[in-house]
Amino acid sequence: MERITATYLIETPYSPEAAAAVLAGEQSSGTFVAVPGETDELKQRFAARVEQVTPLGVSTEPAIPGAVSASGTYQQALVQVSWSIENFGYNLPVLLSTLQGNLYELRQFTGLKLLDIDFPDSFAAHYQGPAFGIEGCRRLTNVFGRPLTGTIIKPSVGLTPEHTAGLVKTLAEAGIDFVKDDELMGSTANSPFAERVDAIMDVINRHADKTGKKVMYAFNISAELDDMQRNYEKVVQSGGTCAMISLNSVGMAAMKKIGDNRALAIHGHRNGWGMLTRHPLLGIAFPAYQKLWRLAGVDQIHVNGIQNKFWESDDSVVQSIEACLTPMFGGYSVLPVVSSGQWGGQAPETYRRTQTVDLLYMAGGGILAHPWGPAAGVTALQQAWKAAVDGLTVEEAAVAYPEFGQSVEKFGKK
Amino acid sequence: MERITATYLIETPYSPEAAAAVLAGEQSSGTFVAVPGETDELKQRFAARVEQVTPLGVSTEPAIPGAVSASGTYQQALVQVSWSIENFGYNLPVLLSTLQGNLYELRQFTGLKLLDIDFPDSFAAHYQGPAFGIEGCRRLTNVFGRPLTGTIIKPSVGLTPEHTAGLVKTLAEAGIDFVKDDELMGSTANSPFAERVDAIMDVINRHADKTGKKVMYAFNISAELDDMQRNYEKVVQSGGTCAMISLNSVGMAAMKKIGDNRALAIHGHRNGWGMLTRHPLLGIAFPAYQKLWRLAGVDQIHVNGIQNKFWESDDSVVQSIEACLTPMFGGYSVLPVVSSGQWGGQAPETYRRTQTVDLLYMAGGGILAHPWGPAAGVTALQQAWKAAVDGLTVEEAAVAYPEFGQSVEKFGKK
Repeated sequence: MERITATYLIETPYSPEAAAAVLAGEQSSGTFVAVPGETDELKQRFAARVEQVTPLGVSTEPAIPGAVSASGTYQQALVQVSWSIENFGYNLPVLLSTLQGNLYELRQFTGLKLLDIDFPDSFAAHYQGPAFGIEGCRRLTNVFGRPLTGTIIKPSVGLTPEHTAGLVKTLAEAGIDFVKDDELMGSTANSPFAERVDAIMDVINRHADKTGKKVMYAFNISAELDDMQRNYEKVVQSGGTCAMISLNSVGMAAMKKIGDNRALAIHGHRNGWGMLTRHPLLGIAFPAYQKLWRLAGVDQIHVNGIQNKFWESDDSVVQSIEACLTPMFGGYSVLPVVSSGQWGGQAPETYRRTQTVDLLYMAGGGILAHPWGPAAGVTALQQAWKAAVDGLTVEEAAVAYPEFGQSVEKFGKK
Repeated sequence: MERITATYLIETPYSPEAAAAVLAGEQSSGTFVAVPGETDELKQRFAARVEQVTPLGVSTEPAIPGAVSASGTYQQALVQVSWSIENFGYNLPVLLSTLQGNLYELRQFTGLKLLDIDFPDSFAAHYQGPAFGIEGCRRLTNVFGRPLTGTIIKPSVGLTPEHTAGLVKTLAEAGIDFVKDDELMGSTANSPFAERVDAIMDVINRHADKTGKKVMYAFNISAELDDMQRNYEKVVQSGGTCAMISLNSVGMAAMKKIGDNRALAIHGHRNGWGMLTRHPLLGIAFPAYQKLWRLAGVDQIHVNGIQNKFWESDDSVVQSIEACLTPMFGGYSVLPVVSSGQWGGQAPETYRRTQTVDLLYMAGGGILAHPWGPAAGVTALQQAWKAAVDGLTVEEAAVAYPEFGQSVEKFGKK
């Protein structure tokens, strides 16, 4: 019978083997008092199995509150645990409860992070995964051989549909590939969702009629379920190509339900993610996280950016991009969304470390605040990426490309 | 215009006022470069507002990775921030993205925990809240003046419907009020959901016909949305009174959708909660968390238990029970579910600290492993609670009540 294997980084005041056994017991049928009807055969069939324990370093301080070590030391380790898929079948919420449920309550751990998950092949047969993925998003935007260039409407909240549509017109004429709502912008008092879609898609459809290029706009459809389905349909009917969902806020069951429509590329926003990952020994790491959302049908997912304005390290961002670009079941491709403080100057380093242009590269001020105007801003981003692929440094690129040179003048001198 | 106010515990290498201003800016329209159309009036209307900053202690180590302090100190503080409801209307996912979204990414914080949320009255008009609450759950089980007594089917996973139904029969005859599936038990290879409902409800309905007492069984309906709706309807059609949902695994939008059916009491399981709260300076605290789920229609929610087997302190458990019992909009009552290592011996301390019997008190081995059998186990739990309310100690109760005395002999000597 197929099994799912999860890898955890743990810290424990006990032996890692003993702590892993508690985890496996708590998360299956293993450690309980025998009751009538619980045969050895049933135990064998449904018990979680500790597959491997690899000791790492030792700490003298517990990372998070838990049992106190008698010896004063806390052992870190990598632990692999597997479950038969007979335990949950194809049910993502129960899978989540199994892999990231009550185990976080166990006092035997003073650190617990879910690092990765290996799914058996039958999951590929059951779950269709991303409806568009990287190739589909390229097809929808007609962008090949370079990153998709995108931006976010700012201010996040407060603009009317007309003002937003005006900005989109400017951006479309500047040659942008992708624009998105902020995650705070659902349906505000002065920008009801449907009116915003009408105003923006009018601009985008006219621009497409005239130029053949349809800008992908990620409307934030996140809402309670019936509203979210209505929002999704509104985007489809208006000729839109993309819907944004705040994954953590909406949740797995509703994301999967909306994704099953498979008519729009799903822009997966991970806001709230810091809560789940920011502590090095608590929560879930991005390689595990993004696999779960690929199963649910997410086509694009945020990975932060090199030299971002947030807390995350460049190493972590690179690991996240690599996780997205690693095929799942030989495909299931998901487009990494690079954003946060990006203006093009990070392109050489991003390319040097990831060797890919399969990105949606988002810049805010780098486009709208470009000294020569938004069209030059978009051009500068594309120049930055061409230079990056050609192996130029930021300084060399600034000399070679005038628009990008202006960006360096304005955004690169801090 | 009505505002929502959130209270955060923060830690920052900067001044708390400056860090709070960054939070308010990031989570609304405040801090961005002015664009055409962003008038002062719009800013005023949609900007988040820092209402209060109360400095607390200072640390010399950052609680979580973030910006490094030049002075070597990290200031902790309570911060209140408010938003106009015009920013999101009545949309729980966008509300979550606002209150617990990208703010966790901010490097200006080396600690950030959402402690509490104040909702304006119009939320009560828009959200119906728990369909049953404490009074409704008492009515459904015909239990008044004492805690509901419950237990969990063990082993968590592996039993067939027949074996599970056999256990339920034993428990029903023992006088139990409530039984639940484990959160790991959705629909397994040897216990498909519908078959389990049929087998269990046959036992429960027969017992109710004979005795007039209908045991409340919380079937774990957690699943992808269509399956979850089908599971819910199956429970309704079979005469069941309760559905269990793993809140974090299913997510807000799907929980709200299922809750809107309002035909079954919703047993809210918080597995995965440790990930969100276990670090003292990261995530969300229970008083905030339970309010969000009350809005979504949860009738019962887990609070762990005094002297539990997990990591959580008694103080934290008491605070959680108090949070549940604090009226929201003058009502919206939710039943606290006390579980984890409970056998009745914790009843006096639980009552002493909370002064309430409005609890669902869950015991495992304390019932099924009682030396005189399950009926004596249920009796012992009820005796423990009568003794607790009468002000007896565990020792006094053990003398006064033979069945509870046996429990103390077996479970209390460690």
